[in-house]
Amino acid sequence: MSKSIRVYSPASVSNVTCGFDVLGFAIEKPGDIILAEQGGKPGVRIKEIVGSDSIPLNPLENVASVAAQALVNHIDPKIGIDLTIYKNIKPGSGIGSSASSAVAATFAANQLLGTPIKNTFDLIPFAMQGEQIASGAFHADNVAPALLGGFIIVRSNDPLDVVQLGAPPDLYTVVIHPDVQIKTSESRKLLPGQVPLKSLVTQTGNLAGLVAGLLQHDYSLIGRSMHDVIIEPVRASTIPGFVELKSAALHAGALGAGISGSGPSVFALCKGEISAHKVHDEMKIAYESFNIKFDSYISPINKKGTIQIID
Amino acid sequence: MSKSIRVYSPASVSNVTCGFDVLGFAIEKPGDIILAEQGGKPGVRIKEIVGSDSIPLNPLENVASVAAQALVNHIDPKIGIDLTIYKNIKPGSGIGSSASSAVAATFAANQLLGTPIKNTFDLIPFAMQGEQIASGAFHADNVAPALLGGFIIVRSNDPLDVVQLGAPPDLYTVVIHPDVQIKTSESRKLLPGQVPLKSLVTQTGNLAGLVAGLLQHDYSLIGRSMHDVIIEPVRASTIPGFVELKSAALHAGALGAGISGSGPSVFALCKGEISAHKVHDEMKIAYESFNIKFDSYISPINKKGTIQIID
Repeated sequence: MSKSIRVYSPASVSNVTCGFDVLGFAIEKPGDIILAEQGGKPGVRIKEIVGSDSIPLNPLENVASVAAQALVNHIDPKIGIDLTIYKNIKPGSGIGSSASSAVAATFAANQLLGTPIKNTFDLIPFAMQGEQIASGAFHADNVAPALLGGFIIVRSNDPLDVVQLGAPPDLYTVVIHPDVQIKTSESRKLLPGQVPLKSLVTQTGNLAGLVAGLLQHDYSLIGRSMHDVIIEPVRASTIPGFVELKSAALHAGALGAGISGSGPSVFALCKGEISAHKVHDEMKIAYESFNIKFDSYISPINKKGTIQIID
Repeated sequence: MSKSIRVYSPASVSNVTCGFDVLGFAIEKPGDIILAEQGGKPGVRIKEIVGSDSIPLNPLENVASVAAQALVNHIDPKIGIDLTIYKNIKPGSGIGSSASSAVAATFAANQLLGTPIKNTFDLIPFAMQGEQIASGAFHADNVAPALLGGFIIVRSNDPLDVVQLGAPPDLYTVVIHPDVQIKTSESRKLLPGQVPLKSLVTQTGNLAGLVAGLLQHDYSLIGRSMHDVIIEPVRASTIPGFVELKSAALHAGALGAGISGSGPSVFALCKGEISAHKVHDEMKIAYESFNIKFDSYISPINKKGTIQIID
């Protein structure tokens, strides 16, 4: 057992227009860092949280400790681990903040214990247990990309079936995170209970096209497929300036744009870094008139997922 | 302009479990053959139909002549073409009988005229016009695979956006065509107007998995993804013995099975020829107790689509 392990786990975008609850991808930055150290007594504890004062220190309520504890319970409940969380992804931003912390903690704990779980893939269910206490749902659509990198399909959550798609080499993302509060539970209430069959056909055609575009590195097809006729129409109004942000992104040459997770973050996909910068600039300009504080990120698709930081 | 052209266009399976109205693939056999010859006066005529007496000779009612006429109208309405149709795919079988004839006629007419349409892909809309008079819908999900081969996604019918997926090398299909009548229009009436959002998520997860499995040549993923929670449950009862056929296929090792088009044909996908023969035998045995005549086919996925036959 090592004395301490430091791990970086990236933010992620889930839903990805037509891929509601099914598709997600990891971005290079931001990402949470977790330091896991041998603890004196059994159980996972939170030693300190750097960068956020809204996250619970109580290990039963913190996604990172719950995830790491799930792994510890599986290996040996007598093990003790202390976690220090460097929180770089703002909670409630819609870019997988809780998934990042849960994944980082699980990965760090497994490294600290000498990788008793040999296949990184098999860490997903432990991280999902952590994420569940934040989102209320047992979903892998942020956890899996944060852990594995690239685009992933969650074919099924139960039984868990996650498919790795990698990412086209020139694909970049721009994320605008408006500083407004959207509760996932409230956002879920807006979802339609029933969907017209015609919309299902449109949505499935686009999702099939998007998956094919990602695997065939067909940027034009990716762009043609990025339409959501089911979820975006009901959620768009919860994000102030969504229409303007999306319009600015497309006007500046983005392949497509949509809501990240259940918002409030808005993402665009772009071909190439130059295009991403142009899209970023136009989205920023479009949003400045709204008098809402926001963060913005330009990033290639993260292909490595969660990594140990060697000092 | 050549004097005569002979063309083979294969049967095809559309819908493909979770890919309702979106996914299709071509099979090696059966397939229709069309002989196109220079005609004496303007317009496309049907000279003879060999192998079926239920198909209209009136060129305004026949999918092949309507499709070829659409192309002729586009090139030069003064052109005359006589078609002889060798009908090998039974009409109403659910394996793209009308699409095969429409595609063969379009392709043959284009060859006869010295390929004024340079890109085969661009023949799709003409063939769709023919198919439309048989199915009542303007759909490319049988036309596109019959023309191009392999698996195809119809991302959108209008504007037309078709994506070619090719096919994994060891993928085979078994088709059982029970000799019963199902009217597509009746079968359409069974479709639900609305679909629960939860079913949409299940269906989209499976379709994304199926597309990824086809492109990554992951046979296990193809099998895990071949589930239809929306259409098959309402249409299964229209096909006598469907449950038994599907069960026999899966029991014999098929990756998955489902309704071809709107039936009555039932198809299975298998890894390798040996498995396909086993699945074929078990499906035949299962169906013999139903006292319904049936045809059966074993075939690799057709990768070439429609071809000119050089005598």
